[in-house]
Order: sequence, then C-alpha cells, then structure tokens
Amino acid sequence: MSLVVVGSMAFDAIETPFGKSDKIIGGAGTYIAWCASNFTPIKQISVVGGDFPQSELDALAARNVDLEGVQIKKDEKTFFWSGRYHMDMNSRDTLVTELNVLENFQPVVPDNFQDCEFLMLGNLVPAVQLSVIEQLKTKPKLIVLDTMNFWMEVAMDDLKKVIAKVDVLMVNDGEARQLSGDYSLVRAAKTIMAMGPKYLIIKKGEHGALLFHENNVFFAPALPLEEVFDPTGAGDTFAGGFIGHIAKTKDISFENMKTAIIIGSAMASYCVEKFGTERLRELSQADIDSRLSQFVELVNFDINLV
Amino acid sequence: MSLVVVGSMAFDAIETPFGKSDKIIGGAGTYIAWCASNFTPIKQISVVGGDFPQSELDALAARNVDLEGVQIKKDEKTFFWSGRYHMDMNSRDTLVTELNVLENFQPVVPDNFQDCEFLMLGNLVPAVQLSVIEQLKTKPKLIVLDTMNFWMEVAMDDLKKVIAKVDVLMVNDGEARQLSGDYSLVRAAKTIMAMGPKYLIIKKGEHGALLFHENNVFFAPALPLEEVFDPTGAGDTFAGGFIGHIAKTKDISFENMKTAIIIGSAMASYCVEKFGTERLRELSQADIDSRLSQFVELVNFDINLV
Repeated sequence: MSLVVVGSMAFDAIETPFGKSDKIIGGAGTYIAWCASNFTPIKQISVVGGDFPQSELDALAARNVDLEGVQIKKDEKTFFWSGRYHMDMNSRDTLVTELNVLENFQPVVPDNFQDCEFLMLGNLVPAVQLSVIEQLKTKPKLIVLDTMNFWMEVAMDDLKKVIAKVDVLMVNDGEARQLSGDYSLVRAAKTIMAMGPKYLIIKKGEHGALLFHENNVFFAPALPLEEVFDPTGAGDTFAGGFIGHIAKTKDISFENMKTAIIIGSAMASYCVEKFGTERLRELSQADIDSRLSQFVELVNFDINLV
Repeated sequence: MSLVVVGSMAFDAIETPFGKSDKIIGGAGTYIAWCASNFTPIKQISVVGGDFPQSELDALAARNVDLEGVQIKKDEKTFFWSGRYHMDMNSRDTLVTELNVLENFQPVVPDNFQDCEFLMLGNLVPAVQLSVIEQLKTKPKLIVLDTMNFWMEVAMDDLKKVIAKVDVLMVNDGEARQLSGDYSLVRAAKTIMAMGPKYLIIKKGEHGALLFHENNVFFAPALPLEEVFDPTGAGDTFAGGFIGHIAKTKDISFENMKTAIIIGSAMASYCVEKFGTERLRELSQADIDSRLSQFVELVNFDINLV
C-alpha cells in the first residue's frame, strides 16, 4: 500500500523584495515530494523535459521517491514559471508561464502504483488529476486535492468533476470564497463540502489554516516568523506534510487530520525561510520535532471550566 | 483592591451591509464594563452628557460597576460616533465624530479608586490616560493600554509617554506596523516592547490575536463565525474579557494571560453577533462556558514527539 503524489516538476525563477533567484527547481509535485518523503515513501506521477537535471531525480530517488510515474520527454522542455512577490509577500504577479511538457501531459499510472492507498493530487490541470483518479482500479482510502483560483477561471467544469471525487479539498481563503460565492468562510465551507469533499482545509497563509468536517472546525495557527524569504511552495509543502503524516499513520480520523495540519504548517514554516526547496532539503528529524514543539507552545492554554 | 476602567461612554450610530442601528449606547468604556463585569466588580472613570440615559448608568451599577468616577455634564452632550462598515466588515468609514463632553475631559480619580490593583485604559485621548496613571498614588499591579491608529496620527508624543508607563499594550496588526515602522509583526513586537510594555497583544480580528512577551509568543484563534453582524466594540470587549479574567484571578503570569486572551476572544465573538452591546447584555455564565469550550475544541490537537 502506498502514497501516490501527482504534481508538476518545474523550473521557477522568483523575485521577492529581498532577492532574486536563478532558474531553480520548483513545482507542486517537487515540493510535496521533498516534504512528504520525511514521513513515508512516495510514488510520484509527473512529467519533465530533457533539460531537467538527472541529479534532481536521483536526489528524490535517494529519499524513497519512486519515479516510475515521472515521464521524461527528452526533446521537450520542463514547465517554467516566473513570478514576482509584492512587498506584503502574500500577493504576486506571474511574469512568465511556459507550459512546455505540461501542455499535452497524459499521466500514466504504472501497474506498480495500483496499490495506492493515499492519493495526493497536487495543484495541476484538473483533467490530469481526474485521469489519475480514473486510472486507479481500486478507490484509495483517502484522496486529497490541492488546486488554485487559476483552474476555477479556465477549467471550472473539470475542476468540479475532480472535487466531486475527493475526500479532502485544500484551497486558500480567497479561493474558498470564489468557489462558493460566499464571503463567510463558515458558509463557504458548507457549500463546498456539499460539492463532494467530506473535509475542507482553508489555508490562510500567515493567518493559519482551518479544517472543516460536518459541523466541526479546527484552527491551526501559522508560526509568526520574523522573515518570510520566499513563499513559493509553502502551500505544496503544507499539503506534503499533511498527506505524509496521514500516509505514515494510516489514520484518516478528524483527530489525526488536526495533527497532520499542524505538521503541514510546521513544514511550510521551514519552506519559506529560503528560496525554493533549499530549506526543505536540509531538514533533519530533530528540526521537524523542534518546530512542532514551537507549535505546541504557540497554542497551548489552560481553561478550567466550572 | 480593585479594577479601574477608563474609557469613553458614548452614543453610536452604525451602518453595516446587513443593517443600520438607531443612535445606540457605545463607547470603549461601556463595552469594557459590560464585558469585564461578568468576572469582577469595576470602578469606572468616564464622562457623559446630560443626554445619557440614567437607565444605562443604573444597569451598569446593578452589575457592580461603581460609577463614582463617571462625570455627568448636565448641560453638555455625550460623545457621538457614527460609522459605516464595508462589505468585508473589517474596514469602516467614520461618518460623524462629535467629541462633545470628551473635548475638555479632565478625569478625576476618586479617593475610593486609589486601591486600584488593575488599571484598564480603554481607547481614549492619550493625555486622559496619562492623567489617570499620574493621579494614582500607588502603581497598580498591572496597567493595560488599548489604543488606536487615530492617536498615532494626532497625539503620538503623548501616546508614547503612556506606552512607556504600561505593562500590556493592545493594538491591531496595522497599528503595530504603524507604531514600529516594521511590516514583520515579530520584529514590530520587539520594537514596541522596547518602548516600555513587557507584554504586547496584537489583535488580528477574524484571524485571532498574538501575545508577545520576551521571546515567547502565544496565538489565540478567533472563532470562525457564520455571520458578523456588527464588529463595533469587539476590540473593547476583548480588552474587557482579558482584564476581567486577570483581575478576577489576580494572576499576571504569561500563562494566565494566555487564558485571559482566550476569554477575551470568546467574549468578542459574542459581541459581534448583534448591534452594539445588545448581545453582551444577555449573556449568562453558561453561555460564556459554552463558548470557551468551543475555543478549546477549536485548537486542541495531539502531537506525540519522539
């Protein structure tokens, strides 16, 4: 039984008010893999061009990321994204998007991936996400979907089909409002859960994240950080920490999802400390535990009710 | 030994996207008194005009609010504020401000208030707040200051003098950035604590609140609400819950301040459910306990660190 991750593997070029990166390794699938592989082995589905460094693939393989599902199109170029963050580090402008290999990506689920128990659909074309779900002969124990406003604008019909088939949906607050047409996040959550997902996670960046399920709600804080160096991949890393913990513990209860969200938040708080995946690559188990302790401290309080 | 509260008692007229109030009772001191009197007796310092209803004063007196420090200027009018909230309920425009009795308010601390152990300085002219501190012959065990951006713009020198004399400062995120000149709230907190207060509370509205002390930080969530009917007084109510709990328990430790912030947040979550002080007036102890239980549920999670 395994965790299957679907997501882009890409080149990014990032500008922030504090610096500018070269063309570096990025992509939702990459961030998820770097993060979740701290917790469990992964079977990865993605596509790259001939220009994608073999050393990057080797580094993931060395972390128990099975790359059989990663297509390498030798004569094509890897997906490239370039963006510039504003002063608040919450909003950004896209400078360049070159779809390249993503343009005609037809994912193929290897036979060896049919034991998929947990499926993490990283942010990607909804039709690709749907194709992976449909290729799986047995329904996974849990399907988690991450998506973004872009797909709501250009592929809402496909996106709604995917949403109807997943157990957990992750979006940010603006996207939850856009998808539901409701400003109140509590009402938006009800509307979105009626579209299919039994669980909804609303990511609020520096303001933490909310987990909704039936009439229950859980609030996970974000760690207040002195510096956010580069927010790219924070949401993907959050998803990776979440599904990594779920797959490791094989426990899909609401209680365990709370823990998984805290772990996702802790991993995301590391991600933003350096450009790209740099910080994620150097983390030890001791680093992860130390940050989790900070989260426990951050929200721990005593109430003695009469 | 007692809790002394300083703050405006006023008339407000409020417009929100969902409705419009008549001229109703408002003012920081009023909200703090209605809230904190759930936890402890209060000695109130304020000023009203001859037009302020005696029934309102009687209602507070019946809740153990000592009004000896409330001046009644029979021939003048009570402070009046009118505002209109935008669709997001976070931002608002001031439509009318009539200072009236506040214009030349000279607070007088009655002899009977000299036993002040806890001093809550609600949002008000900094010179008035300073005058109360200076009239107290014995330094209180804890002085808490609530203020707002308006005073940073028109009376920053006076405000800085007050800030230097208090133990706990409460501001919102925008005000913390304005006061410190730093966008990062973690760095802003360090700068502001260097101005005097040993504790800083940064209120983030629907995103909760942060408590800073030395290198410690605590994050209190806000309860996700389906409807925010009227945000007026939420910050004052938060302050009232905070100081009410501290004064009741007489415990000024960081640990107890965490609890106090959760109580402030719970009370504020009730405040916004109806116009003005309406919801605060009808709360029972069972209501308060029930909402506190929701906060415990909201943030409770298990992490088993190795």
